[in-house]
Amino acid sequence: MLINQQIILKQRPVGLPNSDTWQLHDGPMEPIQEGQILVENIYASIDPAMRGWINDRKSYISPVQIGDVMRASTIGRVIESLSDRFSKGDFVKGGGGIQRYSISDGRGWTKVDRSVAPLPKYLSVLGLTGFTAYFGLLDIGRPKKGETILVSGAAGAVGSLVGQIGKICGCKMVGIAGGPEKCQRLLDQYQFDVAIDYKNEPVRSRVNECCPEGIDIYFDNVGGDLLDIALAYLKFKGRVVLCGGISQYNATEAVKGPTNYLSLLTNRGRMEGFIVFDYLKDYPIAMLAMQEWMRDGKIRSDEHIEKGIEHFYPTFLKLFTGENQGKLILQLNELTENY
Amino acid sequence: MLINQQIILKQRPVGLPNSDTWQLHDGPMEPIQEGQILVENIYASIDPAMRGWINDRKSYISPVQIGDVMRASTIGRVIESLSDRFSKGDFVKGGGGIQRYSISDGRGWTKVDRSVAPLPKYLSVLGLTGFTAYFGLLDIGRPKKGETILVSGAAGAVGSLVGQIGKICGCKMVGIAGGPEKCQRLLDQYQFDVAIDYKNEPVRSRVNECCPEGIDIYFDNVGGDLLDIALAYLKFKGRVVLCGGISQYNATEAVKGPTNYLSLLTNRGRMEGFIVFDYLKDYPIAMLAMQEWMRDGKIRSDEHIEKGIEHFYPTFLKLFTGENQGKLILQLNELTENY
Repeated sequence: MLINQQIILKQRPVGLPNSDTWQLHDGPMEPIQEGQILVENIYASIDPAMRGWINDRKSYISPVQIGDVMRASTIGRVIESLSDRFSKGDFVKGGGGIQRYSISDGRGWTKVDRSVAPLPKYLSVLGLTGFTAYFGLLDIGRPKKGETILVSGAAGAVGSLVGQIGKICGCKMVGIAGGPEKCQRLLDQYQFDVAIDYKNEPVRSRVNECCPEGIDIYFDNVGGDLLDIALAYLKFKGRVVLCGGISQYNATEAVKGPTNYLSLLTNRGRMEGFIVFDYLKDYPIAMLAMQEWMRDGKIRSDEHIEKGIEHFYPTFLKLFTGENQGKLILQLNELTENY
Repeated sequence: MLINQQIILKQRPVGLPNSDTWQLHDGPMEPIQEGQILVENIYASIDPAMRGWINDRKSYISPVQIGDVMRASTIGRVIESLSDRFSKGDFVKGGGGIQRYSISDGRGWTKVDRSVAPLPKYLSVLGLTGFTAYFGLLDIGRPKKGETILVSGAAGAVGSLVGQIGKICGCKMVGIAGGPEKCQRLLDQYQFDVAIDYKNEPVRSRVNECCPEGIDIYFDNVGGDLLDIALAYLKFKGRVVLCGGISQYNATEAVKGPTNYLSLLTNRGRMEGFIVFDYLKDYPIAMLAMQEWMRDGKIRSDEHIEKGIEHFYPTFLKLFTGENQGKLILQLNELTENY
């Protein structure tokens, strides 16, 4: 009998999650029913959005409940199928959660083609991470050639793709990241024209210096002081793309609102949020574009893979310490060629 | 020889302007030159935006300089003309400033037709105030029939028009104003469905009660806590129209940024600012609509007229104490029928 291992939400955190937020649970799998598939989850996407999902608040998606398996996008392999849509051996992507095996009726699951790209890419550049960068920048930001785009969290999974897509659009890309190593990656690997190291440089004066005519688009993954600085330098008809606010996700006091928000008024600016799920019907468009750009060498992505479901919590923490280099992925099972 | 009286910016205020911010200056008028007109300014528009114009900061318009006449939109009469475009006796509107007479080459001045509406209306519903309400709500807010619109400063010159235009669009209008008298006016005169008295009622719970499905559009004249409350109740794809932030204009400490700004992310909301000047080429469209609606009794405006240039400062203060009932106007000269 197959024994599953699952990361279960044990209690809701106040501020940064701690080692009691989740617990690892072992238990036997039920047999699958007619129409269902049994998926061996191989890779799970570890995302800042997870922090929001465990708050007990209505948001764009219902909260993960205490006792539930932690929600996550996963890539896996069908190891047993009573469904017409999937066969044993298919590689699939869906919301498998942080667990080694999941049973599903197949809704929300789609096949992935390993011949196009290695599996982890389907959680980064060819998955929701890539689509977030694509629709956030292109549909909300609406870049025009020659514009200046500032990106926070620029070495992160989304930010690094925004840099490269912006460059394809013919924009000047300025990225903010923490530490000289990440900043070097912005320049060497992610096509940014300028990198600002927020840990070692005065961000405001560097933005002033690097964006002498101001900022046309600010793609925000961070919030807090960086959002305020961006607003201060926003150009006429500038746009702020609200993709995330990681600096505020663990706030135990009031979130820091953007003091300079009236810059939107004087500059006729627009600050707009989005959630990638709204673009579901357009995912194939983004997928096609990203595949082409990858093939042409115009876009690269990096994946930072940690191994072992028991390391979920320390892996999750890396999102907030910024230790990861590239899209953070947790490997839940070995990828064996024979099964 | 004609003696002019002018309100001159004497020093830049910190916080709320005081009696030393401006001074009244008397002096003789120069004779006009070829191409110029001499205008007797009759009515001057007193606006919250004036507070921003006297800060020494780049904004959407250059600051009024120390020693300059205080900037203001005015309605006046041409009392001498060496211009082909204007004749003696024409009623005109332009940027005359807070002074009894002004000399101009006519640029930026247009004739107004007293047979259509009394002169003060050209500073309220048929002027920039009306156009601000019109373009702010219709172009930035984009209301759809049946939507719920929350308006702060709802008894003010702009807010009261937003209420009525929103009603014409078939929306549910909820206004916030200070005191029972103003709230009664919202309901009796400005077509609001609901009035919330922020001085005597708990705004958050009243909004919760009156907008059970949330807010589609928040038209903000105020900023501060009201903006935060509106963001908390913003619906999916909700819009925040940033028209003003009067609660923050005299701030001596950091402006209060909207703590709930991440509601724009989770609700895919949009917060956008605008300046009416950008719609210059479309003013005639707004003018036509407002005239029609006035004629049909669908829109009313009230003007609160104070008399005497020497009362500029106490009149200006009324904007911040909320004492005015209707569009605040300062009368700079008597309107005599013979001249």
